[in-house]
Amino acid sequence: MLVMQTFRRRIYHALFDHNRRSARRFEALCGLFALLSVVVIFIESGVGTTYHLTYDEWHLFVWVEVFFTLVFTLEYFLRVFSWPQPARYVFSLWGFIDLATILPFYVIMLWPEIGIDYLFAWRAMRVIRVLRILKLLRMMPALNGIWGAIVKSRHQLILFYAFISIVMVVAGALMYGIEGPAHGFTTLSTSVYWAIVTVTTVGYGDITPHTAPGRAVASLLILIGYSVIAIPTGIITSQMSGEIAKRQLARICPDCHQSGHETAAKYCKACGGKLPEE
Amino acid sequence: MLVMQTFRRRIYHALFDHNRRSARRFEALCGLFALLSVVVIFIESGVGTTYHLTYDEWHLFVWVEVFFTLVFTLEYFLRVFSWPQPARYVFSLWGFIDLATILPFYVIMLWPEIGIDYLFAWRAMRVIRVLRILKLLRMMPALNGIWGAIVKSRHQLILFYAFISIVMVVAGALMYGIEGPAHGFTTLSTSVYWAIVTVTTVGYGDITPHTAPGRAVASLLILIGYSVIAIPTGIITSQMSGEIAKRQLARICPDCHQSGHETAAKYCKACGGKLPEE
Amino acid sequence: MLVMQTFRRRIYHALFDHNRRSARRFEALCGLFALLSVVVIFIESGVGTTYHLTYDEWHLFVWVEVFFTLVFTLEYFLRVFSWPQPARYVFSLWGFIDLATILPFYVIMLWPEIGIDYLFAWRAMRVIRVLRILKLLRMMPALNGIWGAIVKSRHQLILFYAFISIVMVVAGALMYGIEGPAHGFTTLSTSVYWAIVTVTTVGYGDITPHTAPGRAVASLLILIGYSVIAIPTGIITSQMSGEIAKRQLARICPDCHQSGHETAAKYCKACGGKLPEE
Amino acid sequence: MLVMQTFRRRIYHALFDHNRRSARRFEALCGLFALLSVVVIFIESGVGTTYHLTYDEWHLFVWVEVFFTLVFTLEYFLRVFSWPQPARYVFSLWGFIDLATILPFYVIMLWPEIGIDYLFAWRAMRVIRVLRILKLLRMMPALNGIWGAIVKSRHQLILFYAFISIVMVVAGALMYGIEGPAHGFTTLSTSVYWAIVTVTTVGYGDITPHTAPGRAVASLLILIGYSVIAIPTGIITSQMSGEIAKRQLARICPDCHQSGHETAAKYCKACGGKLPEE
Repeated sequence: MLVMQTFRRRIYHALFDHNRRSARRFEALCGLFALLSVVVIFIESGVGTTYHLTYDEWHLFVWVEVFFTLVFTLEYFLRVFSWPQPARYVFSLWGFIDLATILPFYVIMLWPEIGIDYLFAWRAMRVIRVLRILKLLRMMPALNGIWGAIVKSRHQLILFYAFISIVMVVAGALMYGIEGPAHGFTTLSTSVYWAIVTVTTVGYGDITPHTAPGRAVASLLILIGYSVIAIPTGIITSQMSGEIAKRQLARICPDCHQSGHETAAKYCKACGGKLPEE
Repeated sequence: MLVMQTFRRRIYHALFDHNRRSARRFEALCGLFALLSVVVIFIESGVGTTYHLTYDEWHLFVWVEVFFTLVFTLEYFLRVFSWPQPARYVFSLWGFIDLATILPFYVIMLWPEIGIDYLFAWRAMRVIRVLRILKLLRMMPALNGIWGAIVKSRHQLILFYAFISIVMVVAGALMYGIEGPAHGFTTLSTSVYWAIVTVTTVGYGDITPHTAPGRAVASLLILIGYSVIAIPTGIITSQMSGEIAKRQLARICPDCHQSGHETAAKYCKACGGKLPEE
Repeated sequence: MLVMQTFRRRIYHALFDHNRRSARRFEALCGLFALLSVVVIFIESGVGTTYHLTYDEWHLFVWVEVFFTLVFTLEYFLRVFSWPQPARYVFSLWGFIDLATILPFYVIMLWPEIGIDYLFAWRAMRVIRVLRILKLLRMMPALNGIWGAIVKSRHQLILFYAFISIVMVVAGALMYGIEGPAHGFTTLSTSVYWAIVTVTTVGYGDITPHTAPGRAVASLLILIGYSVIAIPTGIITSQMSGEIAKRQLARICPDCHQSGHETAAKYCKACGGKLPEE
Repeated sequence: MLVMQTFRRRIYHALFDHNRRSARRFEALCGLFALLSVVVIFIESGVGTTYHLTYDEWHLFVWVEVFFTLVFTLEYFLRVFSWPQPARYVFSLWGFIDLATILPFYVIMLWPEIGIDYLFAWRAMRVIRVLRILKLLRMMPALNGIWGAIVKSRHQLILFYAFISIVMVVAGALMYGIEGPAHGFTTLSTSVYWAIVTVTTVGYGDITPHTAPGRAVASLLILIGYSVIAIPTGIITSQMSGEIAKRQLARICPDCHQSGHETAAKYCKACGGKLPEE
């Protein structure tokens, strides 16, 4: 039992401990497999619509998928087996993604009639398999900084998005009243969709105002909304700057204890003493 | 009479005084009702276009609407009854919204033939009822900050929007002359609408230049206009930063009375003394 | 002769000297007339396309136009007559605009057959008359600040626009080669027009890539171009900030001659002395 | 042999040494020729599609092209002949561009049947010739600053673009599953192309969601993506600001050695001494 325990710990440190070089290499390998697997799904999806696959070509894609599924199944069981607290991994977001993206293959194995009969089920399985790309996020620890900035400004962001939603609903309702179903504003939801597409300057053009008052209201909405919509970017950016400002505070002059030095500063701005390097 | 007065005051404090927990709860409840009511209108609007409602389904929507209208009518009369100066409430923006959004139901009750006969009237009533969503704004006191920033920079914003309007009119007139009605630029107003949609980078594509000189002028307009159009965002953002800078001024060093400390600063930048917490 | 001279000078100061209240009122009046005149042209243009005008309605528009033209002709001659150096006014940008926007009426008076025969000439006259809106710019002296910021950063802006033009030409040529005339990229100029419309995120959708490699190149162009295209806004904004920084320099501490105080600062950041108000 | 060496060096300094006025003039001349040559190709491309060229007009374009090709061939051989290390020039990016843009003419000379037979080959040659516009980049040494800022922030930019790519793939896959081939989302690649076009707010409108859940997901993607997509611009801009901050560090007070003075500062912010001019 203890041998097993030691064996499990050894595997964990060798494959999943970020401080070890072997673990970082294993992670890069898994990322590469995930990337390749997704590329294959994209090719499969593209080829399938252009011309009907022959029996042999079809088999090739199936075998490649079998190979990737086995690799990711192995990875999943290694993680479950070696993780210090397996339950915590299994019920984490990563655990769900790792499991869900290998399931489609086994579903086809057990109920082969699904893949053949229903185009939608086939498409849904492709979509689930594409989620393997999310495995690459494991390799980006720097994202935690951005995530932290978003979490810290969540009150402002929620407030802002709630405000924008109200503006969109009112603008959409107004255009629904002015233009009406005759010009594509068939329902209130469609009009709100139009308002979002318009104010964010996406502007598909699938629904556009055709009457003079409709165009006037739309122009006003665009000009005003345009000035407002960039505010979330400002919130996130300023939060990030705040984080950087905090790091500047960590730089304290050893002579006079002055804090708040600029990142590029070499000398203390109060006593002129040499600042420690970052 | 005095009892009545006391009763009114008691209701006001219990339901509408933001310093009381019961009032905050009542406000949240009203907000929830407003949100639900608007969701129902959206569903009604969506369902109505997809298939013809049966008599029973139709009744369901009517009864739900009756319920919400009675709730909001009660809220309105409570406000009118308990408000310290009822006239001020009735003739305020909130008073108008609260009244207008309950009227459509009573209009149908009194003149039932309107709803049946005229599609436009029916649509207009839906639009008015959707305005209930504005009640949610009552729950966002933080918006006053944004509103204050806009009011303070109103001179710059008016100047800017006036300038942009002149540019749009000239650009629209130019394209009206170059492209003409044959390519969708039927009137001067339409051309100005095109100019606004283009310079703000919405770009629906319902009206586009087709001749070589028209495309050249449009390209120039886009490239130049693009650099100019983001200025209002800059004005509002810098005004907000100014507000924050003013709050920084409130932080004065207790030892040397130095002001203007950064938000993240812990020590006075002139004497190194400990700054009070914000 | 001297009386004439005095009379001319008196008119100039009364009507065109910005330090006099009467001149500012006269300018506002001219601006109002310009605005009304342009509104009439817009209505005329809109009405003309919706239904054929009766003889009486037509006459109404002609008489209104006669009235405005006479007003602006009077203004023009007053300016030429009273200006200290008439030639400088006549050959200035404002002189050209003032003259050009009254000409269309006299052209119709002298060659009435133009307006009746040629739709294009009629449209061109409307466009020229719309330029009257530019007269409103006279009332915005604050624009000189923006104009100054643009002039000061002209080297950077020219460099940037030259660079962007080269990128657009190369991107357009690439898409012309990949997609070809079959998908709307008929000529090199059209492809460059597509590149400008795409990178600035206007995205009309009148010309779009249809082949897989075309879409890949377009996606790449969008993602990279998007990060680059906002730079001119940054240049103009930072130039404006620089102007504000210079104004801050004008604030020098009367005690220790420290400069560079923040706009919101009340005390000197070096000696703590009271700063003079702005 | 030594005479040859001296002759080569003399040509190099006269024509390609940026410190000499003659070299700067020669570069401007080459740039002008490149610009004119590209303008001719644009005209040729535009004229060719509008109407069939007569034999004489066709000859005119050929002779102009012969002239430009000879000029650029001469330039190429001068560079190869006089460059200190000819191999380094030939295998540099500039060497490839200079060579590639003169080749199409010689290809037609040797295999004339290509130009006549294959429309695609003819178009490809035009595209290659347009690359001559890149020669103008030689005249923009200031671009090195921007390029340096991009190189320094390459880690952040790569991280960001990798993150955005993952988001785009997931969003595209989701919409592929929801909307499906019936509404234009034929393959996974097409759906990712749609996601890129949407989140960057280009919004062509060639592929748009048509179902209610598709529109809801698209609206969410737009609102969230919109806040995120402007981050690269922020990264590049802040990197440029960092460069400027470093230049500020070069300004050190001669009296107290205080660094970090603002660009617009005239006096030292610590001791009030006069700062040296930039």
